[in-house]
Amino acid sequence: MTGERDLIDELSRIFGLPPPQVVCGIGDDAAVIAGQGGEYLLWTVDALIEKVHFDLTYMPLRQLGRKALAVNLSDIAAMGGKPRYALLALGWPPERDLFGALELARGMQEVAQETGVTVIGGDTVSSPGSLSMSLTVLGQVKKEELLRRDGAQIGELIYLTGPVGLAAAGLETLRRGLTLTETERTLLLQAFFDPQPQILAARVLARNHLATALIDLSDGVASDLFQICRRSNVGAVVESTLIPVPAPVAEVAAQIGKDPLELALKGGEDYLLLFTSPPDREKALYLHFSEAGLGTPICIGKIVRGNRVWLRRPEATQDISGMGFDHFRLKEL
Amino acid sequence: MTGERDLIDELSRIFGLPPPQVVCGIGDDAAVIAGQGGEYLLWTVDALIEKVHFDLTYMPLRQLGRKALAVNLSDIAAMGGKPRYALLALGWPPERDLFGALELARGMQEVAQETGVTVIGGDTVSSPGSLSMSLTVLGQVKKEELLRRDGAQIGELIYLTGPVGLAAAGLETLRRGLTLTETERTLLLQAFFDPQPQILAARVLARNHLATALIDLSDGVASDLFQICRRSNVGAVVESTLIPVPAPVAEVAAQIGKDPLELALKGGEDYLLLFTSPPDREKALYLHFSEAGLGTPICIGKIVRGNRVWLRRPEATQDISGMGFDHFRLKEL
Repeated sequence: MTGERDLIDELSRIFGLPPPQVVCGIGDDAAVIAGQGGEYLLWTVDALIEKVHFDLTYMPLRQLGRKALAVNLSDIAAMGGKPRYALLALGWPPERDLFGALELARGMQEVAQETGVTVIGGDTVSSPGSLSMSLTVLGQVKKEELLRRDGAQIGELIYLTGPVGLAAAGLETLRRGLTLTETERTLLLQAFFDPQPQILAARVLARNHLATALIDLSDGVASDLFQICRRSNVGAVVESTLIPVPAPVAEVAAQIGKDPLELALKGGEDYLLLFTSPPDREKALYLHFSEAGLGTPICIGKIVRGNRVWLRRPEATQDISGMGFDHFRLKEL
Repeated sequence: MTGERDLIDELSRIFGLPPPQVVCGIGDDAAVIAGQGGEYLLWTVDALIEKVHFDLTYMPLRQLGRKALAVNLSDIAAMGGKPRYALLALGWPPERDLFGALELARGMQEVAQETGVTVIGGDTVSSPGSLSMSLTVLGQVKKEELLRRDGAQIGELIYLTGPVGLAAAGLETLRRGLTLTETERTLLLQAFFDPQPQILAARVLARNHLATALIDLSDGVASDLFQICRRSNVGAVVESTLIPVPAPVAEVAAQIGKDPLELALKGGEDYLLLFTSPPDREKALYLHFSEAGLGTPICIGKIVRGNRVWLRRPEATQDISGMGFDHFRLKEL
């Protein structure tokens, strides 16, 4: 085993084939269980650990609460569904003021109210050393509106619901204390602290059958598009000139001596949607997004034969399959 | 805030009143959501953290996997329900061999197969320092068979489904390296390592409407009975002479210089059922347990007026309300 993917494959083997009412198990954004009356239950769980997923030296606890829930709702959105309920298990360091736990809960409740989700409750335990939490969210989707990672077809177009790299640039700004204009700084930090789960955009895609494969951008385009390719048995070509890299991302990249495209494609934590759609649905796609008051989706490339993700730049074409944040690429076994 | 209870009360206030389809939120063993056709969904989440909930120096990873799932299934049993699905979020220390994660999964899968539960999948992340995991379990129960903590009535009898203190004595044996006979040692370690979720016993109680309040013993009789009393607005008297304290528990208590009753009532981790039942159901209770091949429930006391839990000993009566493991009684705010 050399990475998170291999570990997940091994775990699938141990847990075996699920019964038929489990429509989708390990390997998508959420587990899917067939319910009654053509409704599917969507179910996710996520562990967030201090110093791995967040750093409390620059992340206020209320923001952490907001983000923790938003990220989980994003997983439900990525299946085309509506999030409904959340349960929280909180591991709180005994030396940390308990009022901080209430701040965290307040942030979570803000996002819950914004998205029509009910935080039902959970479990609180003492956690020496670092703050950890796990959130589990239940959502629902009609059987015929379920969106998965595995439906991409050769010839289809690849879209993003917004510009990428803002969250990663925000994190770099915090980490390195970069100097930016106030407007740039606000934009980047907001993207990093307060991702907006794309529930409406995903519902528009699902309801109108506009997407064939969908994932939310947690690890970055390179890594997440590779997941769609793996699951769909296809390859992808991304055009460097089509990637929406906002000016503040380019500015941060320049300051830290990085390629802006790398920051945009590998940064992660954007929590936008990445999806594929047949070319003949392009008009309908733009129309439905516009009618819903959503920004126009941005086409960044095409699904092709093969099993790799290619970035076509003016100077050369580069294999970017799976470049991103793989939690276990730390040692070989 | 001075303890876990206060924290939970504050959190309930922040998250507000749930919608009517949430039958039971914070404060019972599992959240209860009304589904279609008179079925209720039962939902739990639990965080387990190294050095708080388990110690890998004496807990093999396969046993940890078994116990982690068993403990969560016990929460579903405590609502009278059938556990169906589990999702795991695992925080794995990067310096620890990943094969250990597979051992943990294997242990979990053993218990899943023994209980008819499907482990669907989950999330794996790197966790520097300590191993942490969170498990979420979904179960179901018919509306009319739901068992809660809040139904105990004055005059009802209090029962246990087995002898208590074995798990706590097992932990002391490991921690202090006590010398016992091989039979005693095996019995105690098995109770500590491998709790058996009382799914069948709980189903017998639920199906036959034999219990008015039910909780699973995670923190110990003193603490868990106090939860029933708090929720039901009643008090309880426990008779010291009726507490089933097995000989090996008394042996361990003697070796460590503790009162055997204290070990039995405050030790925790027994994961048996503690429930209340009207006196006129006693015959039916014994009959249904016997027909199901279960051991006879053990009556340990009576529900009384008031709001405290009393232990009546030959020499004196003692208030034992809530004595047990409260994760946050560590500092005052």
